[in-house]
Amino acid sequence: MAARLGEVSAPARVAGPEEGVTVEELALAARNHGLPLEALRYDVTPPGLHYVLTHYDIPAADPDTWRLTVRGEVREPLTLDLDALRARPAVTRRVTMECAGNGRALLSPRPVSQPWLVEAVGTAEWTGVPLRALLAEAGVRPAAVEAVFTGADHGVERGVEQDYRRGLPLAVAAGDDPGVLVAYAMNGAPLPPQHGHPLRLVVPGWYGMAHVKWLRDITLADRPFTGFQQTTAYRLRQSPEEPGEPVTRIAPRALLLPPGFPDFMSRVRVVRPGEVRLEGRAWSGHAPVARVEVSTDGGAGWQDAELDPPDAAHPWAWRRWRHRWTAAPGRHVLSARATDGQGHTQPLDQPWNRGGFAVNLVQRVEVHCLDGAAGEPEGS
Amino acid sequence: MAARLGEVSAPARVAGPEEGVTVEELALAARNHGLPLEALRYDVTPPGLHYVLTHYDIPAADPDTWRLTVRGEVREPLTLDLDALRARPAVTRRVTMECAGNGRALLSPRPVSQPWLVEAVGTAEWTGVPLRALLAEAGVRPAAVEAVFTGADHGVERGVEQDYRRGLPLAVAAGDDPGVLVAYAMNGAPLPPQHGHPLRLVVPGWYGMAHVKWLRDITLADRPFTGFQQTTAYRLRQSPEEPGEPVTRIAPRALLLPPGFPDFMSRVRVVRPGEVRLEGRAWSGHAPVARVEVSTDGGAGWQDAELDPPDAAHPWAWRRWRHRWTAAPGRHVLSARATDGQGHTQPLDQPWNRGGFAVNLVQRVEVHCLDGAAGEPEGS
Repeated sequence: MAARLGEVSAPARVAGPEEGVTVEELALAARNHGLPLEALRYDVTPPGLHYVLTHYDIPAADPDTWRLTVRGEVREPLTLDLDALRARPAVTRRVTMECAGNGRALLSPRPVSQPWLVEAVGTAEWTGVPLRALLAEAGVRPAAVEAVFTGADHGVERGVEQDYRRGLPLAVAAGDDPGVLVAYAMNGAPLPPQHGHPLRLVVPGWYGMAHVKWLRDITLADRPFTGFQQTTAYRLRQSPEEPGEPVTRIAPRALLLPPGFPDFMSRVRVVRPGEVRLEGRAWSGHAPVARVEVSTDGGAGWQDAELDPPDAAHPWAWRRWRHRWTAAPGRHVLSARATDGQGHTQPLDQPWNRGGFAVNLVQRVEVHCLDGAAGEPEGS
Repeated sequence: MAARLGEVSAPARVAGPEEGVTVEELALAARNHGLPLEALRYDVTPPGLHYVLTHYDIPAADPDTWRLTVRGEVREPLTLDLDALRARPAVTRRVTMECAGNGRALLSPRPVSQPWLVEAVGTAEWTGVPLRALLAEAGVRPAAVEAVFTGADHGVERGVEQDYRRGLPLAVAAGDDPGVLVAYAMNGAPLPPQHGHPLRLVVPGWYGMAHVKWLRDITLADRPFTGFQQTTAYRLRQSPEEPGEPVTRIAPRALLLPPGFPDFMSRVRVVRPGEVRLEGRAWSGHAPVARVEVSTDGGAGWQDAELDPPDAAHPWAWRRWRHRWTAAPGRHVLSARATDGQGHTQPLDQPWNRGGFAVNLVQRVEVHCLDGAAGEPEGS
């Protein structure tokens, strides 16, 4: 099987020194999408603007016949339909989610995969049943050490045919920090198809690969999961031979809502001289963000931004920050850098890894400030 | 102004012979997105899967203070808020919309802009007020020859600072074929931000550039509109010097819902031997689709597909087609070709134009059929 699938499914690779983005990467970029950065203005990202990454196809799901099974090392296996899940006590959590591959296409050399720049993020309010409640109901046996989650999305990756499947250590799956959800609603409405309709996992603080979409099975296992998405993909490696460290929680990141207005093609920003109110969002999956610094001179100098007060109701959501800048004519590079309550921060020079995972290099926003005498736009 | 903006805003260009997709093109591909092709399964595209192209930023719109003005060569200028528009008789039209640049990134040499492959399409049900009713209410003066539509999206393009603005000849704007709408709802809900919230134009049968989003003004003019988006952009040209023909109605196209399942990276499809039900959609902005042909051998032979019956209620929506194919082990290239009721069809060799507009070259879907002895996927 692997040999035949090898004809359609190449090993992971890194782009050559002068190699532009390939048509294969472009096909991924055309189907998946990031958050348009101006959507950082919303506390909760409207549907359709939240980032989406789908490994294979979005499955056709019939909510009337959908079943979630909970089985393996449990005393009472469960088979639940959507009504049964909706009848259980529900919680809603506001969660900032980020793709583990965010920032990959800025690396040099560039790992060849979904080519994110900085925009693979979004914040939504997810409603569902706490996973720990379902596990308590099923009665996890002492032999269990891991929960394995299977989605309905099916495909081939690096020669391996698979349903998308990921594991979580039992302590994470059954714990209350971060409080994993089996979610059936996003922003108060049924999940959209691309976000896992009708059911998905939500693991606050973890990168997106853990939030298994189109969730159809949870199996409690007596050993750690070693499937493709756990031990081949989503590892931090320098070379293909090493086992690597697993990708887990989100590294801190701040993003700037780009000021002024853009050039269509270059996305360079244009502002006029004077005070410019800068704002953005910052998040971390390890601990709430404690500090955001802003540079308006390409990283030479940094000043503390003003953070919105901490919001105890939403510990897993991004935090807004603001900063005032007086723009003078010429070219400027704006950046922001987040530090969380555990002291994790963003690097100015990116430590490279072969998969392009957990890349939280500071964003650089190029801004051109026109001089005051600049003319009027077309049609005004 | 043009000289200073020239620093951030380069002239249109065509990629060099060996030039890969650039980071600038990638930044556009990361914000905008196409229809994931498996979403061709839906008659009406769910929000978030319909293609989106935004020239500048998505504006922050306050629906409570939004006003639409109708002015210029009219007897009674109008200033309408959303309640006033919603109080008027409404119509709902199911419309297939396609970006004028769809297919651009498949051209050689490649025009450098939003790098669409084939997926910049979607079908939605748009609800709003017929434009002809608003124009009748305002009383168009005999001097008017064109209606000019201005959106709230502001940016720079090829050195020109502008609000997005397009014109339609009065006969189109005030006619009932295709029946232009000022729409405030998409699929029964308020417009999402990226689709023009709170108001947009919908021009059934025309490429997306005509459907002005974030619509705030309609001015009746006594001469044809000659702004950037009308006479510089969206023209069919071989060289930058010629005036070119305007881009207007959508050329016919058929797309195949890719069968089987994909490889993550290459998007090549995998099927097993035997009967495979092929299906897809076809549309044209000139006239309803009259014929779809399918090739399963890379374009050497063509067979008629079975078309769903014509739907008189939805003349501007795509039409479903189906075809049965018996897959044998090996590599196959599947294609479909639409022909409309006026005899317009899709080329097998693409006539190139410098902007990459109205490219309706037939899609090619690469499928690998495994042999029957192929093994089982991981975890089954």
